[in-house]
Amino acid sequence: MCRWLAYSGTPVLLDTLLYRPAHSLIDQSLHSRMGLETTNGDGFGVGWFGQEADTPAVFRDTGPAWNNRNLREIADHVRSPLFFAHVRASTGSAVQQTNCHPFRYGRWMWMHNGAITDFHRVRRDLSVAVDPALFACVEGSTDSEIMFFLALTLGLEKDPPGAVARMAGLVERVGHEHGVRFPLQMTVAVTGGERVWAFRYSSQGRSRSLFHSANVDSLRALHPDLDYLREVSDDTRLVVSEPLGGLPGTWRELPEGSYGVTEPGAYVLRPFEPQYA
Amino acid sequence: MCRWLAYSGTPVLLDTLLYRPAHSLIDQSLHSRMGLETTNGDGFGVGWFGQEADTPAVFRDTGPAWNNRNLREIADHVRSPLFFAHVRASTGSAVQQTNCHPFRYGRWMWMHNGAITDFHRVRRDLSVAVDPALFACVEGSTDSEIMFFLALTLGLEKDPPGAVARMAGLVERVGHEHGVRFPLQMTVAVTGGERVWAFRYSSQGRSRSLFHSANVDSLRALHPDLDYLREVSDDTRLVVSEPLGGLPGTWRELPEGSYGVTEPGAYVLRPFEPQYA
Amino acid sequence: MCRWLAYSGTPVLLDTLLYRPAHSLIDQSLHSRMGLETTNGDGFGVGWFGQEADTPAVFRDTGPAWNNRNLREIADHVRSPLFFAHVRASTGSAVQQTNCHPFRYGRWMWMHNGAITDFHRVRRDLSVAVDPALFACVEGSTDSEIMFFLALTLGLEKDPPGAVARMAGLVERVGHEHGVRFPLQMTVAVTGGERVWAFRYSSQGRSRSLFHSANVDSLRALHPDLDYLREVSDDTRLVVSEPLGGLPGTWRELPEGSYGVTEPGAYVLRPFEPQYA
Amino acid sequence: MCRWLAYSGTPVLLDTLLYRPAHSLIDQSLHSRMGLETTNGDGFGVGWFGQEADTPAVFRDTGPAWNNRNLREIADHVRSPLFFAHVRASTGSAVQQTNCHPFRYGRWMWMHNGAITDFHRVRRDLSVAVDPALFACVEGSTDSEIMFFLALTLGLEKDPPGAVARMAGLVERVGHEHGVRFPLQMTVAVTGGERVWAFRYSSQGRSRSLFHSANVDSLRALHPDLDYLREVSDDTRLVVSEPLGGLPGTWRELPEGSYGVTEPGAYVLRPFEPQYA
Repeated sequence: MCRWLAYSGTPVLLDTLLYRPAHSLIDQSLHSRMGLETTNGDGFGVGWFGQEADTPAVFRDTGPAWNNRNLREIADHVRSPLFFAHVRASTGSAVQQTNCHPFRYGRWMWMHNGAITDFHRVRRDLSVAVDPALFACVEGSTDSEIMFFLALTLGLEKDPPGAVARMAGLVERVGHEHGVRFPLQMTVAVTGGERVWAFRYSSQGRSRSLFHSANVDSLRALHPDLDYLREVSDDTRLVVSEPLGGLPGTWRELPEGSYGVTEPGAYVLRPFEPQYA
Repeated sequence: MCRWLAYSGTPVLLDTLLYRPAHSLIDQSLHSRMGLETTNGDGFGVGWFGQEADTPAVFRDTGPAWNNRNLREIADHVRSPLFFAHVRASTGSAVQQTNCHPFRYGRWMWMHNGAITDFHRVRRDLSVAVDPALFACVEGSTDSEIMFFLALTLGLEKDPPGAVARMAGLVERVGHEHGVRFPLQMTVAVTGGERVWAFRYSSQGRSRSLFHSANVDSLRALHPDLDYLREVSDDTRLVVSEPLGGLPGTWRELPEGSYGVTEPGAYVLRPFEPQYA
Repeated sequence: MCRWLAYSGTPVLLDTLLYRPAHSLIDQSLHSRMGLETTNGDGFGVGWFGQEADTPAVFRDTGPAWNNRNLREIADHVRSPLFFAHVRASTGSAVQQTNCHPFRYGRWMWMHNGAITDFHRVRRDLSVAVDPALFACVEGSTDSEIMFFLALTLGLEKDPPGAVARMAGLVERVGHEHGVRFPLQMTVAVTGGERVWAFRYSSQGRSRSLFHSANVDSLRALHPDLDYLREVSDDTRLVVSEPLGGLPGTWRELPEGSYGVTEPGAYVLRPFEPQYA
Repeated sequence: MCRWLAYSGTPVLLDTLLYRPAHSLIDQSLHSRMGLETTNGDGFGVGWFGQEADTPAVFRDTGPAWNNRNLREIADHVRSPLFFAHVRASTGSAVQQTNCHPFRYGRWMWMHNGAITDFHRVRRDLSVAVDPALFACVEGSTDSEIMFFLALTLGLEKDPPGAVARMAGLVERVGHEHGVRFPLQMTVAVTGGERVWAFRYSSQGRSRSLFHSANVDSLRALHPDLDYLREVSDDTRLVVSEPLGGLPGTWRELPEGSYGVTEPGAYVLRPFEPQYA
């Protein structure tokens, strides 16, 4: 339904990744190649950690990313070591800021591509499962936001992979109770300001595309002539819904039912499966 | 928090009531005299019944009413025998189309000025009380929309005054359970396309202002020289958050704890009090 | 750059033509087949004549047409015998209401697909050629709006085909003075509330696509089984940037360098060429 | 018509000046005390110089500043040594991004409160006086933007006070030619990234209010107990349409017909008068 990008590593101008690549996220907002829809023009968002504030800044708007001048300004002037960006294709829910990604709670950011199948049938049961103390923070009407608050309810801040697994398990259980065969389809990125987790999973085992960048060392070996690769720290990583184009050897698909996490000096892939209460 | 206007009677151009009066609703969006806030610039809406469609048209937008050119166009070109208009002052909830009034469900429209006190504390309990079949229709994050869906849950389409009384009773009960002393403050207008009900009530007995227009007969007697009063049907009525100015003798305050309803040829006032399950 | 539709004939709900056809204008906003861009998501507009007002109503907004709920409402509730609709793909000029089509001046509406080549080079000279009394009415920054005000300057209200020919001649002359080889590319629709003129022209002789509907009589002969064709008046016509799909035999291309005009009971095609002062 | 604020000095979070003061610019957007209008809700803008880029970032939007969440985010996360902020009250010209201040050209930013009297009568003559090479950069329909491009035409980048004087002289001459008695009313701020100039002038000698902050030394003497004053550099200055509240002794009115400029270690006031070609 959407396209997204998560960056972690040597601080860069957002422009470098949002606009410059041949098949940048902005280009994907108009001409996605691997998404369900070619056009992702129903709002967008970017969230970034800066030098000082405790929490990330989140800039979201309801028009298309491709013609938004304020996004262009921010991309040209903001440098960040960790940021998320998302372009949205709505499948009917309202086009409003509170339905745009990334969602934020304290230091935590969340973005999603995919869907809870037949969300209108399970929305109430899932909403009720949100911690009552968090319920009042729900501002929009998307499945993605409910997934975030469910993950927060189930321990996201202490154990992200565990919380996401429990959220997925809950969504599947409730979906099955309502007769939905394949309740969940998701690629999700989440961060608390240090590490970035990216999950690829679907109940049917046919998940939307998700790629991470190769490690910088191997790229340097492949492309010894490229100076700028020397300036990029070893643990710099990008996770994207679809490749931005660029150097051969850059992109690797995350396996079906897996998640990746940026660790100091490494990118670790692990299997992912829902966890049932 | 807001200002509104409900019209029923001889079809008029919306412009006649939205822009022309000295202290029109558009003027109130900038300079309300009796509201809690002088400025009502956080979105607006107008809903009207026309000649043919079964359901009312609803036009809502997130900017201020006073500078909206599309509203100006609609007001200049749409004639209606029954319409609602609302200008919003948010007290924190998101400025988005789905938080703008009037809300619609089938043929029914609802708009509200006031608040459920400490809504963040009771929002979950009230949301859960909405009929599960209606829950998926909730798109925004306001107390007003939840009040509408609670009223629908409690029989609005068959017995509007009873359903609103039961809704108010439920809001008060849940508020009291959460330690809220005065849970509800409301002026509400509701219609299904024929009659218009307007309610004025607050738990504290200090409700926001609400006025209805005098009957046309008595205005004709007061102002025998005004030709246009001869063209207006006897049962034409206007209910407004604050007077639009105009003729002496035009405006009468609805009593505290009451509601008015447009009946064929008459405007009937009745006492209102919450009804507890 | 854009896609448009002009309707004249038996009053219809806008919905009938904006949303219902298989390849409706709304569908073209996402997936244009014959336009330079597949996506036309940089604003839209609809302008319609109603029963009473002297001037058409114009509703324009800056987001995509495909997700605009207010457009959906208007389409479901407004019936008109003459309306224009336009979806925009900007090639750099600001996405703002005053750059959206149709443009209006008094009773006159204008919409355009195409471009004045290298507009930034000729904009000043063309702006200066606008009647000083009209200059203050220019609110946006598009070539299309300047073309409209030039046509008004050159007699649009009295002689539409002549004024458009003089406008095209002026644009070509000024372009040539600035060294532009092929200064003009246009399909334009214009109306004063009765007849509708539609022009197809480009300096290079390679104009963007433009189609008109076949006459109703011939459609009835082709499709004798279709009841609704009996209810449509003989002079009902549609002019569109690209076919909406539908019945075989419905669409005919306007020839290169021509214009069509709705006359009572007939649709007349005439050659078009620029006229030089 | 508007309210604005220009800051230069020790880098601060925008929040410190946009939201924190008792009568902050955001408060002024709702409740201006000294402006012609109490409400400045027709768009806003903020432009800031950061650490690296050559040009300032400019973020502008069409809704009110007071409810804009993206402005809130930027204010919480952006620190700058030199920024402009502006809230707009339109007197009829379109509410669109390209009419919002500050305007930018290269490194130069410009914002304005006031008006060219009867702008519709002189707009054409003033537009024609803009350097043809700059003409294509005009995107909006305000007098303020034309004033900026006239000042650029007349040497702003080399001699700001001289260029502004020539611009004012031109505006007065053209106004007088069209029979306008008092053609100009302005408070203007302009910067190229180092110094900030602020002008207060009107043809009638009754200019809108404009204040600058007292020098930090004198504030330290008045308030020896305030620690944070020790951390602020001596040449930190604020120029504002109306005082933000705060410490006694903070605000000084710029004299009628004068301008102030931030020099290293000093704020210099000089007389201002239009210069006629």
